[in-house]
Amino acid sequence: MSFRFRAHRVTLNFKNMAKSENIVWHEQIIKRENREAIYGHKSFVLWFTGLSGSGKSTLALEVERKLFEKGCKTYTLDGDNIRHGLNKNLGFSPDDRVENIRRISEVAKLFVDAGIIVCTAFISPYKNDRKAARDLIDDGRFIEVFVKCPVEECEKRDPKGLYKRAREGKITNFTGISAPYEPPEKPEITIDSFKESVEIGAEKIIEYLSEKGYLS
Amino acid sequence: MSFRFRAHRVTLNFKNMAKSENIVWHEQIIKRENREAIYGHKSFVLWFTGLSGSGKSTLALEVERKLFEKGCKTYTLDGDNIRHGLNKNLGFSPDDRVENIRRISEVAKLFVDAGIIVCTAFISPYKNDRKAARDLIDDGRFIEVFVKCPVEECEKRDPKGLYKRAREGKITNFTGISAPYEPPEKPEITIDSFKESVEIGAEKIIEYLSEKGYLS
Repeated sequence: MSFRFRAHRVTLNFKNMAKSENIVWHEQIIKRENREAIYGHKSFVLWFTGLSGSGKSTLALEVERKLFEKGCKTYTLDGDNIRHGLNKNLGFSPDDRVENIRRISEVAKLFVDAGIIVCTAFISPYKNDRKAARDLIDDGRFIEVFVKCPVEECEKRDPKGLYKRAREGKITNFTGISAPYEPPEKPEITIDSFKESVEIGAEKIIEYLSEKGYLS
Repeated sequence: MSFRFRAHRVTLNFKNMAKSENIVWHEQIIKRENREAIYGHKSFVLWFTGLSGSGKSTLALEVERKLFEKGCKTYTLDGDNIRHGLNKNLGFSPDDRVENIRRISEVAKLFVDAGIIVCTAFISPYKNDRKAARDLIDDGRFIEVFVKCPVEECEKRDPKGLYKRAREGKITNFTGISAPYEPPEKPEITIDSFKESVEIGAEKIIEYLSEKGYLS
């Protein structure tokens, strides 16, 4: 790496030099494979989908904690760090919902490119949006985790009081109440959060990853 | 971490349980400090700014390479992975330029939260936008690197043929030709890419980071 900005300005055609610089350069940048080799695991997305109150974030964070403790490089994208930041200029209209998931997918893709295991925890109610996310990420690096829970149970839990407000008509287009949730047909993993504990659910996901060779 | 989704449903008020779950939970998620402790370095943004052709990306990628080889967890955001992905629905109008830099800043913030050293290589011509990026990132974690180069030299290099097209009027609002570039007043680091080689510039940045304690 000894290219100098001003080197050989007299003797070389500058445009050609810039071109060859690019060629030399691209051999030297850090690629995902280099990152994976050093980090010791594959990079991929665990895409958690499910109703509000199904336990997506709780489960995602517990899975992340377990992976981090195993020495993996990890991160979790959820409402806390996305809705108040990158996507704070989006509402809940159909167009904005699509754009919301599109941006999350693109950010997840960047993390995967950076060699990181990224968990995303968003309702992501529409099949088409989840398919678009899957299509964006390279083959085998998108793992859909359906956090399955009856809406009645989610409404009973209602940890953020959102179902109550939706029933009172204070929130419109609320998934499960006044807007549809389209369950995944072939998710890689299903966790039944009505029957399974966070601990067991998280362990099941880690086992899946180990068996499929993602962690070695 | 033994909270079960269905535990004690009969004996405990569910809302209280959900609340206490949150409390327990927040103690257990992985924080930036945990990541930094394991990764062995601080997380921060190296924000490269300068004209098209000044060498921002080349320099950013070389700095990233050096940091990665030192064992740091790193990533670079640049036109290649942002303009065709997250920001592909943005053009070059004033509003879109602001939104472009805003989204990049928000993504950089996520990487910093994930414990990663992130280089960003975008012209980012406006002081206000760079200030907004700086304000978004926690104190001391935003390091502005001004890649200084006379516009005449950048135009001579013109590695992507953009200056030529701007002169022909095929690109409007081109920074340095038909749109302003506001140089930083107090950048943390200035690299004079007209006089310094990539190697020397990158080394200067690494020295700055070492001296300021970012890498220990």
